Amino acid sequence: MENSLNSSIVELLGNVRRTKPLVHHITNYVTVNDCANATQAIGASPIMADDIEEAAEITAISSALVLNIGTLNKRTVESMIAAGKEANNRGIPVILDPVGAGASELRNETVRRLLAELRFSVIRGNMSEIRYIAGLRATTKGVDASEADLENSMQSGMDIARALANQYHCTIAITGATDIVSDGKSVFCVENGHPMLSSITGTGCMCTSLIGSFCGITTDYRMAAVAGLLCMGIAGENAYEAAGQQGNGSYRVAIIDEISKLSPETINRRASVYEARV
Amino acid sequence: MENSLNSSIVELLGNVRRTKPLVHHITNYVTVNDCANATQAIGASPIMADDIEEAAEITAISSALVLNIGTLNKRTVESMIAAGKEANNRGIPVILDPVGAGASELRNETVRRLLAELRFSVIRGNMSEIRYIAGLRATTKGVDASEADLENSMQSGMDIARALANQYHCTIAITGATDIVSDGKSVFCVENGHPMLSSITGTGCMCTSLIGSFCGITTDYRMAAVAGLLCMGIAGENAYEAAGQQGNGSYRVAIIDEISKLSPETINRRASVYEARV
Amino acid sequence: MENSLNSSIVELLGNVRRTKPLVHHITNYVTVNDCANATQAIGASPIMADDIEEAAEITAISSALVLNIGTLNKRTVESMIAAGKEANNRGIPVILDPVGAGASELRNETVRRLLAELRFSVIRGNMSEIRYIAGLRATTKGVDASEADLENSMQSGMDIARALANQYHCTIAITGATDIVSDGKSVFCVENGHPMLSSITGTGCMCTSLIGSFCGITTDYRMAAVAGLLCMGIAGENAYEAAGQQGNGSYRVAIIDEISKLSPETINRRASVYEARV
Repeated sequence: MENSLNSSIVELLGNVRRTKPLVHHITNYVTVNDCANATQAIGASPIMADDIEEAAEITAISSALVLNIGTLNKRTVESMIAAGKEANNRGIPVILDPVGAGASELRNETVRRLLAELRFSVIRGNMSEIRYIAGLRATTKGVDASEADLENSMQSGMDIARALANQYHCTIAITGATDIVSDGKSVFCVENGHPMLSSITGTGCMCTSLIGSFCGITTDYRMAAVAGLLCMGIAGENAYEAAGQQGNGSYRVAIIDEISKLSPETINRRASVYEARV
Repeated sequence: MENSLNSSIVELLGNVRRTKPLVHHITNYVTVNDCANATQAIGASPIMADDIEEAAEITAISSALVLNIGTLNKRTVESMIAAGKEANNRGIPVILDPVGAGASELRNETVRRLLAELRFSVIRGNMSEIRYIAGLRATTKGVDASEADLENSMQSGMDIARALANQYHCTIAITGATDIVSDGKSVFCVENGHPMLSSITGTGCMCTSLIGSFCGITTDYRMAAVAGLLCMGIAGENAYEAAGQQGNGSYRVAIIDEISKLSPETINRRASVYEARV
Repeated sequence: MENSLNSSIVELLGNVRRTKPLVHHITNYVTVNDCANATQAIGASPIMADDIEEAAEITAISSALVLNIGTLNKRTVESMIAAGKEANNRGIPVILDPVGAGASELRNETVRRLLAELRFSVIRGNMSEIRYIAGLRATTKGVDASEADLENSMQSGMDIARALANQYHCTIAITGATDIVSDGKSVFCVENGHPMLSSITGTGCMCTSLIGSFCGITTDYRMAAVAGLLCMGIAGENAYEAAGQQGNGSYRVAIIDEISKLSPETINRRASVYEARV
């Protein structure tokens, strides 16, 4: 059954493919190729540039900026700040993926500094990362959400997302079995996805790149976040059907396949997204 | 129909596979794994080493040096210069991939410096990058060629390639719907390839790695460039037939498959390369 | 036919999947994604962090530390030392992959320094790299073992492994047509594997990540090394059957598939490992 949410997302996807927004990434070297290919698969155009001498200049010609701290270092953190300030000055959306927040003092300090010096349009993380940012007890296990943090209730997740969105005047996206998106007022839940997504590296990072791609063509960042989560989730489901039994390698390839093949029909048929009563 | 160009390329491919030349890359972290696997798939041996303390030494044991500025930074630019000088002193061919030339002052300045301090055997770029280097109006869109730049005529592209080849005493290779190669005198056109090649990350970089692999076993750099473009183009066609409908992820995998399976028969059957009248 | 070695390995694999040890990598940017996905495919959890300000702290929450010098630079070598010392202080196993040892003075000097300042649980390399470390004549060809070094007899390889293991009080693993593992007393040989493993980038690095994953759940590092080599070898064989004819790209995908699908049955059916008489 089609609904207005699905229609909005179908329209956003069409716009990404028509306008091919340039999405500047300062990101980690583990999943950077996945992020580039996911960005192209959804229809946008990726560019990775992390030297302080060009970071702001590349941001200036881009439609969105994705900052991912997965393999942060002192050199690239400065580039993130410079690029982020340029984006803020120009009204270009900035998306944060706080990979591993809570796992080291460097990551914690960097997240604090990024949040203090930059304004973000969307912050996407797993429950442990978002709990850490919210100042709650978070028991991160490296770059994955911990079991303990996942045991908190959906209601708790929605409350955290909404409060954090209000605190930072941005959209918060928490990925998990059910994804949660809030702009501080409304809350959306995306039930698409597949458990196998967490068995390969980079699906969180790719999800953030998809959100960045959508942010490049709309100022409705809440809907851009919903669209990114939904596209990743549906691709994860379709990829499981296509290749899940073959193993992790084939599943990883199929995810990019399915992102590139997302159609209005697929979205209307598979989307499971709704606005929660809060 | 076989012809002498095809025969030359078949012979070069046989030589690469027989001698497995070591190809030193100082390249970007987005597509570096693709470059390594493409280099191995064509039959050569990749090595990536970018620290200033070993860059020249690794070049000295290599048969070719590929410099790719896709994610350049101040540290690696110095290593490129050191490695390039060592290669020049030893007569080892140096291949430049000026990724994103025109997109930032750092990239422009770096390209100017590399061209001033080093002698290249082959420079391979898209039309926007090559136009930038030629001092022409180029409207780059990040790391992809812009529509405006692609609208220029084939004749214009051939003229640019030939003039630039003469200016820098090297072979210029412009990749596009029809690839153009010139050493300043003759011009060759390669019509192999598939539009889907531009929908995934790294095909330009991989193409440069193939050219580097061929440069490692011949001093006919013009023919090495033609061979690299032709192999990439045919692999792109075969990959489309094998997996194009499955989506971007499978297509990317199939490109490496098809490079590794290139045979004299495939080249003779599919090659569409000719010398242009200029 | 099952035997006690196979049973031990089956048990180790079950433990990795049950406890999902966090494996900290400071590794090269060429194959880092392969390492992360291989680590997840075997059932462990990878984290990559190379900044000096967090390297030791991330090691402290990890169950094993993998140091791979494939694209070493001065910045990350210091992080390796800091992380390695933290691991040594805490009794966390450290695994070394001396990629390209013998190919440059920087690599040689770094290996010397790592061996002088850190205690390793396992060192895994190809015959050229291990010969270099053993102070023997090694004729490395970039990052691959040279033909000359491979021509040495199995007996010679076993002697080198045993002597080096005694010298550094660790387990030595030499990968080749037959893999050799020694803790200085006993020697194990693993005959699983497929020649096609050497035709794609990263299989050595992935093998080290598997060893690291096993080291994360046992203190029997000799058996952890055997388990890592065996799992990689069997995956290489199964991947060849599944996809070898399709080419290098599909084979690479299939390796991750087969690591993720390794079962007690597969191990018992395919394992070809034995203790050598020395």
